[in-house]
Amino acid sequence: MTKSSPGFAGIYPPIPTAFDANGKIDYKAQAENLARWEAAPLEGYVVGGSNGEYISLERAERVELVRFTRANSAAGKQIIAGSGMHSTKATIELTIAMAEAGADAALVVTPSYYKSKMDHRTLIAYYTAVADESPMPVLLYNVPANTGIDMPVETIVELSAHSNIAGVKDSSGNVGKMGEVCHRARSGFQVLAGSASSLLGAIAMGAVGAVPALGNIAPEQVHRLWSFAREGDYESARAIQLPLIAVNQAVTARFGVPGLKAAMDMLGLYGGPPRPPLLPLEPVEIERLRTVLTQAGLL
Amino acid sequence: MTKSSPGFAGIYPPIPTAFDANGKIDYKAQAENLARWEAAPLEGYVVGGSNGEYISLERAERVELVRFTRANSAAGKQIIAGSGMHSTKATIELTIAMAEAGADAALVVTPSYYKSKMDHRTLIAYYTAVADESPMPVLLYNVPANTGIDMPVETIVELSAHSNIAGVKDSSGNVGKMGEVCHRARSGFQVLAGSASSLLGAIAMGAVGAVPALGNIAPEQVHRLWSFAREGDYESARAIQLPLIAVNQAVTARFGVPGLKAAMDMLGLYGGPPRPPLLPLEPVEIERLRTVLTQAGLL
Amino acid sequence: MTKSSPGFAGIYPPIPTAFDANGKIDYKAQAENLARWEAAPLEGYVVGGSNGEYISLERAERVELVRFTRANSAAGKQIIAGSGMHSTKATIELTIAMAEAGADAALVVTPSYYKSKMDHRTLIAYYTAVADESPMPVLLYNVPANTGIDMPVETIVELSAHSNIAGVKDSSGNVGKMGEVCHRARSGFQVLAGSASSLLGAIAMGAVGAVPALGNIAPEQVHRLWSFAREGDYESARAIQLPLIAVNQAVTARFGVPGLKAAMDMLGLYGGPPRPPLLPLEPVEIERLRTVLTQAGLL
Amino acid sequence: MTKSSPGFAGIYPPIPTAFDANGKIDYKAQAENLARWEAAPLEGYVVGGSNGEYISLERAERVELVRFTRANSAAGKQIIAGSGMHSTKATIELTIAMAEAGADAALVVTPSYYKSKMDHRTLIAYYTAVADESPMPVLLYNVPANTGIDMPVETIVELSAHSNIAGVKDSSGNVGKMGEVCHRARSGFQVLAGSASSLLGAIAMGAVGAVPALGNIAPEQVHRLWSFAREGDYESARAIQLPLIAVNQAVTARFGVPGLKAAMDMLGLYGGPPRPPLLPLEPVEIERLRTVLTQAGLL
Repeated sequence: MTKSSPGFAGIYPPIPTAFDANGKIDYKAQAENLARWEAAPLEGYVVGGSNGEYISLERAERVELVRFTRANSAAGKQIIAGSGMHSTKATIELTIAMAEAGADAALVVTPSYYKSKMDHRTLIAYYTAVADESPMPVLLYNVPANTGIDMPVETIVELSAHSNIAGVKDSSGNVGKMGEVCHRARSGFQVLAGSASSLLGAIAMGAVGAVPALGNIAPEQVHRLWSFAREGDYESARAIQLPLIAVNQAVTARFGVPGLKAAMDMLGLYGGPPRPPLLPLEPVEIERLRTVLTQAGLL
Repeated sequence: MTKSSPGFAGIYPPIPTAFDANGKIDYKAQAENLARWEAAPLEGYVVGGSNGEYISLERAERVELVRFTRANSAAGKQIIAGSGMHSTKATIELTIAMAEAGADAALVVTPSYYKSKMDHRTLIAYYTAVADESPMPVLLYNVPANTGIDMPVETIVELSAHSNIAGVKDSSGNVGKMGEVCHRARSGFQVLAGSASSLLGAIAMGAVGAVPALGNIAPEQVHRLWSFAREGDYESARAIQLPLIAVNQAVTARFGVPGLKAAMDMLGLYGGPPRPPLLPLEPVEIERLRTVLTQAGLL
Repeated sequence: MTKSSPGFAGIYPPIPTAFDANGKIDYKAQAENLARWEAAPLEGYVVGGSNGEYISLERAERVELVRFTRANSAAGKQIIAGSGMHSTKATIELTIAMAEAGADAALVVTPSYYKSKMDHRTLIAYYTAVADESPMPVLLYNVPANTGIDMPVETIVELSAHSNIAGVKDSSGNVGKMGEVCHRARSGFQVLAGSASSLLGAIAMGAVGAVPALGNIAPEQVHRLWSFAREGDYESARAIQLPLIAVNQAVTARFGVPGLKAAMDMLGLYGGPPRPPLLPLEPVEIERLRTVLTQAGLL
Repeated sequence: MTKSSPGFAGIYPPIPTAFDANGKIDYKAQAENLARWEAAPLEGYVVGGSNGEYISLERAERVELVRFTRANSAAGKQIIAGSGMHSTKATIELTIAMAEAGADAALVVTPSYYKSKMDHRTLIAYYTAVADESPMPVLLYNVPANTGIDMPVETIVELSAHSNIAGVKDSSGNVGKMGEVCHRARSGFQVLAGSASSLLGAIAMGAVGAVPALGNIAPEQVHRLWSFAREGDYESARAIQLPLIAVNQAVTARFGVPGLKAAMDMLGLYGGPPRPPLLPLEPVEIERLRTVLTQAGLL
């Protein structure tokens, strides 16, 4: 049912989707961005994650972006495809389509609309059904800031027993929880940190890698941080980590995807407009963001 | 751009979608349920709302359910179609399709995935774009328990100035807020209460009607409650209201859509299974629900 | 153990505590305010509630304020004394002292520091111990905006069986919950609404009275609203209710106790400074508050 | 205004207060516990913190506990005294009394009752007033699980400029925030982690020490974890950290102070009953806790 389970140690930026002024995907800009990321020390990409505005994409666009990324990246780069839909059946079908489009793993967000019913029993049933049918390894995706759901340790640990569930991307920033998962999940289960703000803390507690928005605009720094920490040189890692926190807050919690795209525009990548309902930053926000990037030495 | 704005005074149950054991829509069961509701004193239906599991439906299924409900209900019944999607463009297109399928009004839920960015400016832009293009009146849909977004009074009031935004369905249960909206919105803007637990309070504060889950299983009682309150007989209304609160909590906050469907099964309607990831109630939950219905005199 | 249980139907403003510029209680100003309130149609006062800044008062000050209010108010006015402390023993002792100082009932806030432990079992034990020892009727006090604790219906209903627990002041604004309490609590158990924003809705659902901050600055209006609703004239009540919501939001959620005091200063009562850590409003906030009062016709 | 600022690198357990069956402080048991802790490798104690049930203590008891701890501990041990009250004036007076009783530093919790008013301006004014008058260094105390207030980075950073504010104890578990504070606060400002669940992550991000409930029952392990991390041996530190997380969750979030006391009873310290309203664990909870301690090798 699955390829031999790959390792996800490393940095996998959740790449944004380039839109033109009419809200259409701009594949030329997407290719240029990918060329930049390909030159950086990255182990792969998350395609169709929260920063990819997957929620605003058509299903066909999501599949095409995976195919496109696969075609425009080196063979060794792992493609992790966001394949979460709102019904179990739709998620399974999209996961299969993503594997056919060239993805190496599926990143499956917690369903979240019926929040009070997304209990242990329901999440176990959901992920088990998806992992049973997925032709590639599944990564759980916990992102409470977007979903309002914070998957409990017990649920993650029980799901880790499934041979086709390879790990979890946890964007909660709760490194104590990540450590508890590392301790109690089956051996080989991998934790990926979802946020660069606490990346060093997450690695200290046992995370093997990360899916950081910041990886799009500062891949070298984020990767160096990760490398130093992996080698046990926490002091050098901390010297990189601390100045990046304010930048990361700016392109996530504070300004969100429009902020990440504005930062990309400032840094010579193609950011462009988000797809509505998301709106571009206002001029005063752009200036604040510029200050943050300048203070961190990225501009 | 719009038909002459209709009134929404009355009770509009958010009808569930009947699925068979394989998760397919069971139109025969849906028709039988509709026949029951048609015999009840209801002003219309919400099709494809939260209780209709719209989030787990394919787009084509959502449209077909509207067409089907229109075809199976009396001419005077108003069909309010849930037409919210995750991108502005997709919502506009579905809203137009819903009008063509026979809907009288669109119920448009707040976009919610990028919660920190769903600010006043973004919501104004979103709803204005949708209302500008909608061939039928738009109702705002505020349901914080599902979306994690609670649309502020200021935003609702500003949107009420749009001639094609007819009102708001507010499921927050915050009747003070509903009153403030009634007071400050443009004259004629209509507030529909989303919950039967505080329906009498909502009417007292100015709501003209409701979209209550309870309307599916106790339409006569809910409608009588509403009628008494409209006529100013609050004491009679209260005598109906108070025993219904526990039932309403059971089929919404406590047991959710699976609870509503289990109650329908008990009451001779077709409930059936929810579509996964939602799971049917467990036996012990069914017994608790039966007790609640019995205590309220519905069984 | 208790006097024959009094009725709390009516309006009981939670009176603020007058401080001079040095943070000392200004009894002269307090007396002048009381004289104004005595001339208004009010059934009594809550002394040492949240708006009385009880949390910042010394224990002796809290007792003295009750004695002072008793001495400066008509015989028929009921004095409800906030007597919640953080330990069970301290609450019992203060409750006894409050009765000796002339209070007619005790308003006992939920303990809240150890939030995760304030479960049903703990709250039942706490209130039972206090009510067992109290020489006067106890009112439960649920104020989640300040405490982070929202007492469940089950807990209130179980406590209502205690002969010395006369009712609950619920400041949650959740009128559905108030209705459920009215329905399931022992006969005679009284619900007082804690907020004027949803007062009409609360009365519709069964509340007998209120403890509204707004009662300090608009007692005639609030009392008229209550009287109309009690008589079943909901339309007249609503005409008073709706314009008051914005004012109430301003002197509670938005500007808090400093806002209430600033409003009192504008209206010819003594507001004065709050006790630190609370700070007086800033000039720009005062202007905004003045606009709100003016728009509501209070200025 | 201050002694030369001491360093707080190290482990400072927030020691519980021993009560007898009547709820009185049991100083004999307290002395015996202290003798155990004195034999452990600890840099000092927090007296009158959340785990000390300060909120349920009389003011005089809080001062006496500091005097008693000073008298029963070695000269080199630093005593950090919880001195937060609800008014600014009361906090200042208690802080001065704590210094006279022998404390080396004051731990001042955020005021929290008027949550919506505890904004940047108010917190700056509060802590500045306290630090201006305190005869010893002040540590800010951020504990959102108890207070509902999460002090923003901006506020902590601005307060770090005060020469008598030595650091912050942050119990939020948000190590990204701790890192940001380390980066932006004045040089020498010290961050103490409030939770053992993410201690290693916190140290990685720049925290110099911790105030962990777990330090009361597993001081050697916690101190070894800290030492390894300080020396850069993160692998050895992680081997200690991970099995402790479940224990820490049990004696904090899950079972709270009653859980910590029950664990102390199991481990040969005096735990005894908490002071009401807190209740002792129920038998079934005790068994669950015993399992957790056994699995972690502490029993």
